[in-house]
Amino acid sequence: MHSAPGLSFLDATFRAIFPQDYAYRQQAEERLNQLTMPHWALGDLMDLAVDLAGMTRSMRPEVSRKKVVVMVGDHGVTAEGVSKYPPEVTTQMVHNFVRGGAGINALARQAGAGVCVVDVGAKDDFDQLVREEKIIAKKIGRGTANMAFGPAMTRTHAVMAVEAGVEVANQLAAEVDVFGTGEMGIGNTTPSTAIAAVFTGIKVAELTGRGTGIDDARLRHKIAVIEKALAVNKPNGKDGLDVLAKVGGFEIGAIAGLIIGAAAQRKPVIVDGFIATAGAMIAYSLEPFVRDFIICAHRSIEPGHGALLEKLQRRPLLDLNLRLGEGTGAALAMQLVDAAVAILTEVATFAEAGVTGAA
Amino acid sequence: MHSAPGLSFLDATFRAIFPQDYAYRQQAEERLNQLTMPHWALGDLMDLAVDLAGMTRSMRPEVSRKKVVVMVGDHGVTAEGVSKYPPEVTTQMVHNFVRGGAGINALARQAGAGVCVVDVGAKDDFDQLVREEKIIAKKIGRGTANMAFGPAMTRTHAVMAVEAGVEVANQLAAEVDVFGTGEMGIGNTTPSTAIAAVFTGIKVAELTGRGTGIDDARLRHKIAVIEKALAVNKPNGKDGLDVLAKVGGFEIGAIAGLIIGAAAQRKPVIVDGFIATAGAMIAYSLEPFVRDFIICAHRSIEPGHGALLEKLQRRPLLDLNLRLGEGTGAALAMQLVDAAVAILTEVATFAEAGVTGAA
Repeated sequence: MHSAPGLSFLDATFRAIFPQDYAYRQQAEERLNQLTMPHWALGDLMDLAVDLAGMTRSMRPEVSRKKVVVMVGDHGVTAEGVSKYPPEVTTQMVHNFVRGGAGINALARQAGAGVCVVDVGAKDDFDQLVREEKIIAKKIGRGTANMAFGPAMTRTHAVMAVEAGVEVANQLAAEVDVFGTGEMGIGNTTPSTAIAAVFTGIKVAELTGRGTGIDDARLRHKIAVIEKALAVNKPNGKDGLDVLAKVGGFEIGAIAGLIIGAAAQRKPVIVDGFIATAGAMIAYSLEPFVRDFIICAHRSIEPGHGALLEKLQRRPLLDLNLRLGEGTGAALAMQLVDAAVAILTEVATFAEAGVTGAA
Repeated sequence: MHSAPGLSFLDATFRAIFPQDYAYRQQAEERLNQLTMPHWALGDLMDLAVDLAGMTRSMRPEVSRKKVVVMVGDHGVTAEGVSKYPPEVTTQMVHNFVRGGAGINALARQAGAGVCVVDVGAKDDFDQLVREEKIIAKKIGRGTANMAFGPAMTRTHAVMAVEAGVEVANQLAAEVDVFGTGEMGIGNTTPSTAIAAVFTGIKVAELTGRGTGIDDARLRHKIAVIEKALAVNKPNGKDGLDVLAKVGGFEIGAIAGLIIGAAAQRKPVIVDGFIATAGAMIAYSLEPFVRDFIICAHRSIEPGHGALLEKLQRRPLLDLNLRLGEGTGAALAMQLVDAAVAILTEVATFAEAGVTGAA
């Protein structure tokens, strides 16, 4: 994708994003109405099939090549003790992803999806993994600054994080039909909750969950840290890049970028859980049409996630009490995308099958 | 399976059903507790993994060979005009299943599952399909009698319907790891609602849904027909075979039998939607331990289904506004069974991956 003269890379990308194609939506709906089953008897999967036709401008949406992109970033706010795990776990988990031993590896394999790990903001470097082409290097910084005392990153870095996500989408577009968003970053429910508070206007105490599993005392502390970060930074909810810079994270920006890039390529993007939906909210605030290319995978048990889904007016496909992230929910939902396409393309109509319609 | 002297075939089968194995459940739970993720972060899928270990007595549950068994039966009560579709659709859909053009064919293919159609009580015969071994013939009768005026079938036929299901489970056991229950029978939400009313004690009006999509007037009529059937037949809720005989269906009895047979073989059985759960309720009333082998696939939009799930104390995996039956929800849930096994068997522990545990 090349920018028009005078347009920034992001602005040029936004210009390539259009709503779903209404004619294909209608054509899909017409076919689904004639399938040998009671009207709309496969419910949400039929809605999904209509969306996929509208996104891909096809009555046979191509969805076979799938990739979960795991954006990695660290968070200065972990210094405040908001997580149960030390930040070095981010680095250790990257090695676990590359060796294929993490939850996302198991679930992506099972869904027939690839896993692609991108370092946008890990504290540590991964020189050898980068040399071996086992991860993609797009590092903007070595972890964010502690948002309890000032902005997590500069506005320039926020733009770069989003751009990094778009670049990854562009780089992978030739080999991927369906993107899934994943992430790894110890502490990242904290910025995600702050983002949810800015965009929904709901009180931090009502949005904050236990993340990796903190106790009551640490939960109260986490709420106080998020409230402080919002008071110190005063993010402007009308400006998604300001929110991302002040209380976001590198991997959250890169997820926003991946979603923007996928939408510009007219490819469905399956948004995983809470952190991914915070990224989707940033993307939506920058370019509302991206929502037409988002499939929300699941409802996590983090309260902030439900609030963001409501704000985006998206009902997720799964509700399985997941709270892992990494893209695991997105991987599970990929199979429902396959199922939706199978319904659209493989089920006979009443006329084709010689079955009597409703009286 | 051979009966002990003096024991009926069904009684002998019941004697082969034991609860899940506690030691394997515990062993699975211990491993899942050590995986490189926050505690129980894959929620319901981890519960499912524990169940699968307990059912199969294995830390590597074998789930690769899957089959959806579609039990077919017609219903005399369709004479009362309870459905939007004429009963000949049952026959037409059997041909659609065999040709591979129905919803269940598309979703089973996508799940890597086979589809097996069994005629236990269709109005029409399928001589050629039986000769070509495209369906299994276990016909007990040519549709049930109209339950609005007397029992749907004799008690002997009810026993035979359940036995037919057990026989199918036994016949397929050598080639199937995971069963899914499916059904086809125009009118069968009517007996299923009657069964739900008997076992839950909830008013018929609160349990009755629109089935294939009837309007308000026909819904009121359907409620009156079910109330009449219950008043005329007075089924005894303490006697599952009495309930099946008086207000059930051949395919509902065969589903109960398939579940009983699967449990006796220690094989997981994925129960589809409302009609299948009515069959599961009959099976549970005959032998409560069967519940340990049941995986509830999804919550359909039929109100009677939710009531039966609550009575069985089972939370379904999916909630996608499905109301097709055929086993479609079971086929979708099969992929979550694969995912649960992948989590149990493919994800590294903290020790294996060298990842730091929680503080």
